[in-house]
Amino acid sequence: MSPTLIGIDWGTSTRRGWAFGVDGAVLASGALPRGISTVADGGFAAVLRELAGAWTDGSVPIVLGGMIGSRQGWQEVPYLPCPASPDALAAGAQPIDTGIGPGWIVPGLSCQGPFGIADVMRGEEVQLLGAGIDAGVVLLPGTHGKWVRLEGGAATRFRTFMTGELFALLRTQSLLGRLMEPGGPDEAAFDAGVDRALDDPALTALLFSVRTEGLFGRIAPTALADYLSGLLIGAEVAAGLRDTGEVTAIIAEGTLAARYARALGRAGATVPRLVSGDEAASAGLLRIGRAIGEGRA
Amino acid sequence: MSPTLIGIDWGTSTRRGWAFGVDGAVLASGALPRGISTVADGGFAAVLRELAGAWTDGSVPIVLGGMIGSRQGWQEVPYLPCPASPDALAAGAQPIDTGIGPGWIVPGLSCQGPFGIADVMRGEEVQLLGAGIDAGVVLLPGTHGKWVRLEGGAATRFRTFMTGELFALLRTQSLLGRLMEPGGPDEAAFDAGVDRALDDPALTALLFSVRTEGLFGRIAPTALADYLSGLLIGAEVAAGLRDTGEVTAIIAEGTLAARYARALGRAGATVPRLVSGDEAASAGLLRIGRAIGEGRA
Repeated sequence: MSPTLIGIDWGTSTRRGWAFGVDGAVLASGALPRGISTVADGGFAAVLRELAGAWTDGSVPIVLGGMIGSRQGWQEVPYLPCPASPDALAAGAQPIDTGIGPGWIVPGLSCQGPFGIADVMRGEEVQLLGAGIDAGVVLLPGTHGKWVRLEGGAATRFRTFMTGELFALLRTQSLLGRLMEPGGPDEAAFDAGVDRALDDPALTALLFSVRTEGLFGRIAPTALADYLSGLLIGAEVAAGLRDTGEVTAIIAEGTLAARYARALGRAGATVPRLVSGDEAASAGLLRIGRAIGEGRA
Repeated sequence: MSPTLIGIDWGTSTRRGWAFGVDGAVLASGALPRGISTVADGGFAAVLRELAGAWTDGSVPIVLGGMIGSRQGWQEVPYLPCPASPDALAAGAQPIDTGIGPGWIVPGLSCQGPFGIADVMRGEEVQLLGAGIDAGVVLLPGTHGKWVRLEGGAATRFRTFMTGELFALLRTQSLLGRLMEPGGPDEAAFDAGVDRALDDPALTALLFSVRTEGLFGRIAPTALADYLSGLLIGAEVAAGLRDTGEVTAIIAEGTLAARYARALGRAGATVPRLVSGDEAASAGLLRIGRAIGEGRA
């Protein structure tokens, strides 16, 4: 095995890596739940070596993207303001001595949203590049889901929704979780949540209905989590379609992507192309790594 | 001291009690953080005795309102469907042997909201009676805040917003709380949150701005909690004014009432009358207790 490039997608909770051959083929890959929130200051080199040490003799360039470039990461790399071209991302990557070879950390992106509010991403910009979409709206659902408008290959603006974090909080920490029981998936309950949230912007009132629909036995305990998911995704889809526009592609893994595609369909929107989040991340790291290599040549 | 009636407002987290004289004057009162969530099954009589045992020789009638009548309380009393008159509330109260005298637990109210969703209250119906408002919209903010429309002295419909529970969750359990520092109150930050939420229904996107406005130093760490409060209260006020209408009165304690009055003012709505939550609860229990007494006479 002779990799010519190593790519690392290092987020808050997980870390994935790929060793690429000269033709871009994936020669090896791995993932561990060692996101930056699990690594103490000074511990990043050892965690990287654990994943990718066997892939390199110390000479293979390593490209790192995601929260690893944040204030809580290995080395802070400032956000690039939108619009940022693929070349700008490569040019903005900052060198780091990884201990197992020369490394570059990719910058995140920032943009100005409504009311002049700044918005930020770290990691999604790599996936956007990897998906190879030049224009349109790309949806990257998750803990902090992003709706991104692309023009000429560059992200021009985007908006973040706290859907995934709210779902986890409400399910595990709030009164709403108390009536829930494991089960599902229940598509009818999910659809009811989506439809109501598409029709009524009073989300903080609709959320209370997770309790009352359970109390009065109208939604089964095993379906309440799907109903909650539908309310939150429906609210995001309503706002995203209004603010950002019709979705060209969704970058996510299967189940999550299918939920958003279903909600978009219920909103009467075009059902977009689905792109694997893993594949988009690895392709994006490869593309940035090659651009960095050309910049150095 | 010769009370002729004892009133107990027994909620999820706190319990307040009053001993009334023959003319309705409060002869004694007390409060303890012994809400139903802190009392094990079988323990209610002892906790009641601790508060009110010294007020009675065992013959004084005791009226109990709030979550004490829920499935998790002392004895479940079914919800009365809206509209429910004051007389219906008194007639629906169910007797209970409290161990320190004859007791009656007041029923809560239920109504049908948008999409046929049931909504419920327990305790607020007592405060509504006590405030003596016959018609209009009454706002009872809190963990699960209520907007209630009254006609002919009876609640005809209402809607619950999870504003208070969401605020507590997001401040203490979410990513948003990490940048917050104690301080405030900061009225400018609160106002900014209210104004943005009044103008933009994408609440789950606006919530992420609590993080970015902090990250980019546009709102001070000591003001971020007020900004979050403004976003959530602004979203509630926007939806409440649209769905339920202009507010006649707010029943709440001082600081919380002032926040809602301020948000209503920023929305261009009439600033309502403020009614103390404690006084409304005690007056409502007295009124229901007298009606029960007349019903028995």
